[in-house]
Amino acid sequence: MVVPTTHQFALGIDIGGTNTIFGIVDSRGEIKYRGALSTNKYDNVTDYVDALYEAVRPALDLINGDELIRGIGIGAPNGNYYNGTIEYAPNLKWKGIIPFADLVTAKFGLPAALTNDANAAAVGEMMYGAARGMKDFIMITLGTGVGSGIVANGQVIYGHDGFAGELGHTIIIPNGRLHKGTGMRGSLETYASATGVKMTALEMLESHPNEPSLLRNYKEDEIDSRVVYECAILGDKIANEVYKFTGEILGKALANFIMFSSPEAIILFGGLCKAGDLLTNPTLEHMEANVLPIYQNKVKLIFSELKEADAAILGASALVWESKKPS
Amino acid sequence: MVVPTTHQFALGIDIGGTNTIFGIVDSRGEIKYRGALSTNKYDNVTDYVDALYEAVRPALDLINGDELIRGIGIGAPNGNYYNGTIEYAPNLKWKGIIPFADLVTAKFGLPAALTNDANAAAVGEMMYGAARGMKDFIMITLGTGVGSGIVANGQVIYGHDGFAGELGHTIIIPNGRLHKGTGMRGSLETYASATGVKMTALEMLESHPNEPSLLRNYKEDEIDSRVVYECAILGDKIANEVYKFTGEILGKALANFIMFSSPEAIILFGGLCKAGDLLTNPTLEHMEANVLPIYQNKVKLIFSELKEADAAILGASALVWESKKPS
Repeated sequence: MVVPTTHQFALGIDIGGTNTIFGIVDSRGEIKYRGALSTNKYDNVTDYVDALYEAVRPALDLINGDELIRGIGIGAPNGNYYNGTIEYAPNLKWKGIIPFADLVTAKFGLPAALTNDANAAAVGEMMYGAARGMKDFIMITLGTGVGSGIVANGQVIYGHDGFAGELGHTIIIPNGRLHKGTGMRGSLETYASATGVKMTALEMLESHPNEPSLLRNYKEDEIDSRVVYECAILGDKIANEVYKFTGEILGKALANFIMFSSPEAIILFGGLCKAGDLLTNPTLEHMEANVLPIYQNKVKLIFSELKEADAAILGASALVWESKKPS
Repeated sequence: MVVPTTHQFALGIDIGGTNTIFGIVDSRGEIKYRGALSTNKYDNVTDYVDALYEAVRPALDLINGDELIRGIGIGAPNGNYYNGTIEYAPNLKWKGIIPFADLVTAKFGLPAALTNDANAAAVGEMMYGAARGMKDFIMITLGTGVGSGIVANGQVIYGHDGFAGELGHTIIIPNGRLHKGTGMRGSLETYASATGVKMTALEMLESHPNEPSLLRNYKEDEIDSRVVYECAILGDKIANEVYKFTGEILGKALANFIMFSSPEAIILFGGLCKAGDLLTNPTLEHMEANVLPIYQNKVKLIFSELKEADAAILGASALVWESKKPS
């Protein structure tokens, strides 16, 4: 049976520590069917893959069987594109090196490609979002942590071992803030993440005890990047300083990244982007001030064009069209 | 006339601020003929290209005419691979944007590819040197300045504008040492170059006035990276500290680069490499200490396998075999 390409579908799966979401996506990026299941309910990865299959089955039936599904794309923490493995993911119950793509292929009878969440986001952006037509860009995800996916010469950079693109862990302030997860000091993630924004706010409140601030109306565990943003747009000085500082660190980091791969654009994605100009104005200022003149006023700093709820599924599914392996 | 591939040659040209060197190179990296001419004698780039042609002509005749030459590869300061242009090179007399590859093609009647010196070095290393068979590596040239060429997925990363890979200008120490050329502070080049080593030595001598040192036997303008190295192997404490510090900065910078592109190896080239272990021991230590565990003990730190006198010509000539343009 010959299936016109436009009628082919990809199954996109995004594995989070708590939940897994999936969707059947056509090649134009339309999500035809969505579903979800618990990730952390399954101590055993085989049980999880079985449950995933049962959850997806109705969707496959709905679109007339899996002969229309070209392949499966998976975004997973610590996902290794080359091997299709999930390796030592700290937030998953399955320890060690899990041959996840192989397990999925065995169960579904379909080719599967796997990468980490941020790389999947970059592929999604290239196929359906703000990076359409771009061959050189960097995707930065600003959530609880900072992830990244780097595209050069039209290809995701996976590096020799499949683990390239951990820009959140590059050191921006030597001997700076401690990252509790890695034990390293001064990485981008300790500043330019939701966690970092909260920490900056708490530090600034403490170091300016006589400066009044709306943030003082909140308990410590109530302060998060959203609260800081809301106080900032109400004109709160400390809250504004928090985003200025966050943008300064992010801008300096982006400057270094630009001098590495000279991208056409840097695409920001994730919770912190809700701060809009409050974040991007200082980011742009310090990005431009810290690159050589040959790079100045060339690199676009833009937000993702994918809906946050769809991006993970779209990114994962895009692996199917992009990947050379399952074709 | 059908010429067997093994008998084809490339003309490699390396343009320095003072001198230009060139060579006729076969596809196995053997330099069959070498020559040189002055660069800075020619105020006008057309006169220079004419002189270059006259200088190369005897070599072309010697190997039976230019129908055996497949193309011309050029390494040049501020060389742009995409356009074949030399753009605003601070150490050349030809100002603005020079369409150099086009001028050479017009004069020689041969396809020409051009890139900057460090990218050419990376291509040379991939074709003839320490990076043979590698698809992901970073070349770092440690000379008067710090240059870099990055290869990922088997291709040089040129970025969207042809200027990727200026790792010497990434900021490693925020608000650190001033770079007189760029006006920026704390870039890798201000520390991990011959110029940087000299400056570190002078700073350490000044900040430890009571510490005896062999370096105090030299006048300020006599101290260079070679003198510091020679004093260090004689056991001089300050000279050893200079290389320890240089390696620390370089190692931290390399750690950041590894988390970007996860290379199989980092290849060091240039004058500073003469310091050998004195440089690489502290570099390795701080490189390993500043990457995530997934990268530890994976990335080889090795020296170029090309003779310094040949590397520039080989790198430039390798562009001819590598390039898609002139084929």
